[in-house]
Amino acid sequence: MASDNENPIRIGLLGIGTVGSETARLLIEDCEELSARVGRAIELVGVACRNPDDVDFPWLDHGLLTTDTEALCRRADIVVELFGGLEPARTMVTLAMESGASVVTANKALLATYGPELYRTAAAHGVDLYFEAAVGGAIPIVHPLRESLAGDRVEWMLGIVNGTTNYILDQMTTEGLDFDVALKQAQEQGYAEADPTGDIEGEDAANKAAIMATLAFHTNVVLRDVTAEGITSITAEDIEAATAEHKVIKLLAVMENDESGVSARVYPALIDERHPLASVHGSFNAIFIHARAAGDLMFYGRGAGGAPTASAVVGDVVTEARHIAQGCTGPSIPMYLDLPKAPLDAAKAAFAVRFVIHDKPGVLAAIAREFSDHGISINGVNQDLTPTRHDPGYSGELQQLRLVTHQCDEQTLRTTVKAVQGLDFVTGTPSVLRVLA
Amino acid sequence: MASDNENPIRIGLLGIGTVGSETARLLIEDCEELSARVGRAIELVGVACRNPDDVDFPWLDHGLLTTDTEALCRRADIVVELFGGLEPARTMVTLAMESGASVVTANKALLATYGPELYRTAAAHGVDLYFEAAVGGAIPIVHPLRESLAGDRVEWMLGIVNGTTNYILDQMTTEGLDFDVALKQAQEQGYAEADPTGDIEGEDAANKAAIMATLAFHTNVVLRDVTAEGITSITAEDIEAATAEHKVIKLLAVMENDESGVSARVYPALIDERHPLASVHGSFNAIFIHARAAGDLMFYGRGAGGAPTASAVVGDVVTEARHIAQGCTGPSIPMYLDLPKAPLDAAKAAFAVRFVIHDKPGVLAAIAREFSDHGISINGVNQDLTPTRHDPGYSGELQQLRLVTHQCDEQTLRTTVKAVQGLDFVTGTPSVLRVLA
Repeated sequence: MASDNENPIRIGLLGIGTVGSETARLLIEDCEELSARVGRAIELVGVACRNPDDVDFPWLDHGLLTTDTEALCRRADIVVELFGGLEPARTMVTLAMESGASVVTANKALLATYGPELYRTAAAHGVDLYFEAAVGGAIPIVHPLRESLAGDRVEWMLGIVNGTTNYILDQMTTEGLDFDVALKQAQEQGYAEADPTGDIEGEDAANKAAIMATLAFHTNVVLRDVTAEGITSITAEDIEAATAEHKVIKLLAVMENDESGVSARVYPALIDERHPLASVHGSFNAIFIHARAAGDLMFYGRGAGGAPTASAVVGDVVTEARHIAQGCTGPSIPMYLDLPKAPLDAAKAAFAVRFVIHDKPGVLAAIAREFSDHGISINGVNQDLTPTRHDPGYSGELQQLRLVTHQCDEQTLRTTVKAVQGLDFVTGTPSVLRVLA
Repeated sequence: MASDNENPIRIGLLGIGTVGSETARLLIEDCEELSARVGRAIELVGVACRNPDDVDFPWLDHGLLTTDTEALCRRADIVVELFGGLEPARTMVTLAMESGASVVTANKALLATYGPELYRTAAAHGVDLYFEAAVGGAIPIVHPLRESLAGDRVEWMLGIVNGTTNYILDQMTTEGLDFDVALKQAQEQGYAEADPTGDIEGEDAANKAAIMATLAFHTNVVLRDVTAEGITSITAEDIEAATAEHKVIKLLAVMENDESGVSARVYPALIDERHPLASVHGSFNAIFIHARAAGDLMFYGRGAGGAPTASAVVGDVVTEARHIAQGCTGPSIPMYLDLPKAPLDAAKAAFAVRFVIHDKPGVLAAIAREFSDHGISINGVNQDLTPTRHDPGYSGELQQLRLVTHQCDEQTLRTTVKAVQGLDFVTGTPSVLRVLA
C-alpha cells in the first residue's frame, strides 16, 4: 500500500465539546495506528470553535484552534462536523462538500432535516457523507444497513435510540418512581439535560428514526414524516400495570415498509419482558431489525457519551480516509426508491387504555358500548380497586379501568377514547399505550 | 450514477447447496432491485456444481449450471465461493483472484486455514475478498469490525458462534437433558449434522475465532493458533450446579489482545445469567465486543441457515459490485500488525471443578491441601449429597464435590486436578469449566 507521509490526508474538526474533544484526542494520540489502518498518513489540521481561549487540553496544540470555520472547510480533505444543530452546520457542511471535502458528522438533526439535500450535494461533488455516530452512538448501524444488509429487504425495525428516556423508564420500573422524580434523578446524574424536552418528547428519537428509515428502505424520510409521542404522560400506574402483565414500557422508534407505504414513528409501547429489547437497560441503546432473508437481528451498545460517539466518528474518518487513499470517494448512498409514506390511519395496533372513573353501576357497560359502537373489540379488561394517586380530586371513590384492545387503527381509537372521556363518570386524562405483539 | 446495462457485472456462483440455492434465488429474483442498489446491472452468469442433472429449481435456468468451475472463475467479475471445505475452494478462489475477479465466500475453514495467503493474493491482484457470512451467518460482524470500529481498539470479544452447541446446551438447561440425549434431539430436528464432531468439539467455533481475531486485532490469526475445547464432557450435573448459582454454560469463542499478546480460544464457560450473552437461546448467535472507546457492544442474530447466510453473501456481492462500479477494488484488509501470540500459560481464569468422590472423613481436607500446595486459592466449595447418576459403580456412597477457584493459570489448574485424581477416594473423570467474571 502506498505510503504518502509527505502528503497526509487533512482532517478538519468543527466543534470541541464532549464528542469533539474525545474525537480530537483519538485522532492525535492514535494518529500513527490510524494512519497504518488507512495505509496513508492522516493529520488533524485544525479545530474550529467559538472561543479558542476557553479550550485547554494538555494533548491539544493550541495552534490548531481556529475561529475561521470556512477556511478550515476549504483546506481539509475530511471535515468532521460536531457543531450539532442546523446552523451553521448546514452551511459549513455544504461548503466543505462543494470544496471537494468528504464529510463525517454525528448531527442527527441536520441529517433528519436536510438529508436529501445533503446527499444530493455529496453526489454532485463526488464526495462521501458518513454519519455512523448520528444513530445509536457507538453501535454500528449505518454500515450494517448500507453494506451488510445491502442484499436483503428490511421489513421493519424497532429501536431504543434515546438513552435519557430509557434510563428514566428503567428507573420508574425498578424503583417505582413517578416520571417527574425519575427525570430529576436523571438530570442530577447527567443522563438528562437541563432542558430535557428534545429527549422526553421523542424528537431526538424521531430524528434517528428518519435517518434509519432512509437507510433501511432506500428512500428519503425526513423529520416531518415522523410522528412522535414522548414519555411525559407515563405514570407509575402504567408501569405497575405493565409489570403485572410481564411487560415493560419502552420508548421505541418504529420503522416499517409494507404495502401501505413507508412509516417512521416514535411512541412508548408495551413489549413482552422476554423480547430482546426488554433487557436493554439504563442508557444503553439497541436496534432490532427484521429483514426478509436474514430474519431477526439486534445491535446493542452505548448510544451516547463522548468516547463511544467519538469511536463511531473516528471509524468513519478511517473508512473515508481509505476511500480517499484508494481514490474512490463518490456516490454511495443511492436513495433509488421514491416510496409513498403510509397514511397515518394505515397503522393498526393493539392499545392499552387506562381511564380514571367514578365507580358506580353500569360504568363498564357504558365504556364497552363506546368501543363496540366504534368497531373496536376488546381483548382484556382490568378494573382495579387501587385509586390513582394522581387525581387531585381523589375522594375515595375513584378507580382505574384498564382496557386492552385488539388491533385497530389509531384514528378510530383516539375518537373512541374522546367519546369515553365525554361520559360523565370519567375524569382526568386517559393513558393510551400501544402494545407490541 | 452511470447505468451500464449492456455490460453487467458478472457473478459466478460456486456451489448450489442450502446457502448456494438461496443465494442464487435472491440474485435472480431480486436482480433488478439489487442492480439499482449497485447503480449498475448485475447478472448471475453461471453456477458451478458437480451434477447439474441433480439440480432442479423452478426459478433457475438450467443453462446456467456448469461443471467447468475454472472457466466460470475466469469469466466472472465476482466469484461467490460456497463449496465449503479446503479444496477445491482454495484453488478456485486463488484462480479467480489471479484472473482479476473479487471473491465473496462464506467458507470459514478456508479463511481460518489459508487466510493470510488469500489476503496477500487479493492485495497482489488488486481485488477484494469479502466474507461477512463466514462468521455469525446473517449477523453483520465483518463490516462493523472493518469499518465501524476502524477508529477504536478492540480489547476483547466473546462470541456464541456455533448454533448447534448453543441449541444443545439450551436444551440441557431448560429440559434437564443429558448431553447425548440433547445431541440426538438436535440431530432429529436438523440443528446438528449426522457427524456432529466439528460442532461439538469446538472446531467450527475455532475457525470463526481465528477470523474474528484477525479482523479485530489487525494481525494474522489462523486455526492452529486457536485452542479449542468442546462440550462433550458437560453433564446434566454441571448444568444443575450452574443453574443453582444463577449462571449458564455457553460455548464461547474468546478473543483477547493484551500485554501478553493475542489469543483466540474456544471453551465452555459459566457466565452470569444477567450477562447479555446468557439470553442468547436456541440456534441464535451473538458476538459481544469490548472496545476501548466504544465500550460494550453486542450483535445478535441467526448464525446459520440458508436464507440468513445468503442474506450476508448477497450483501457482500452488492458491496463488492459497488466497488467494481466505482472502480475501486483493491487492498482493503491491512493486517498491518504482527502481534505475538499469547503463551498458553498467560491466560488466567477462575475455574469450577467437579470431582466424584467416595465420601469418607478427611476428603475435603486432602483435596483442599492439593490446591493449596499448588498455589491455587479456593473461592467456594459445594459438597453435594446427590450422587452422580453417571458413575457405573454407584453404590450409594459416591458424592460430588465442586470447587470454584480464584484466578489461576490453566497449566497449574490441570496439574492440580491431575494430582487430586490420583487420590484414592477420587473416582471418574472430573469436570473443569472456566468461570467468566
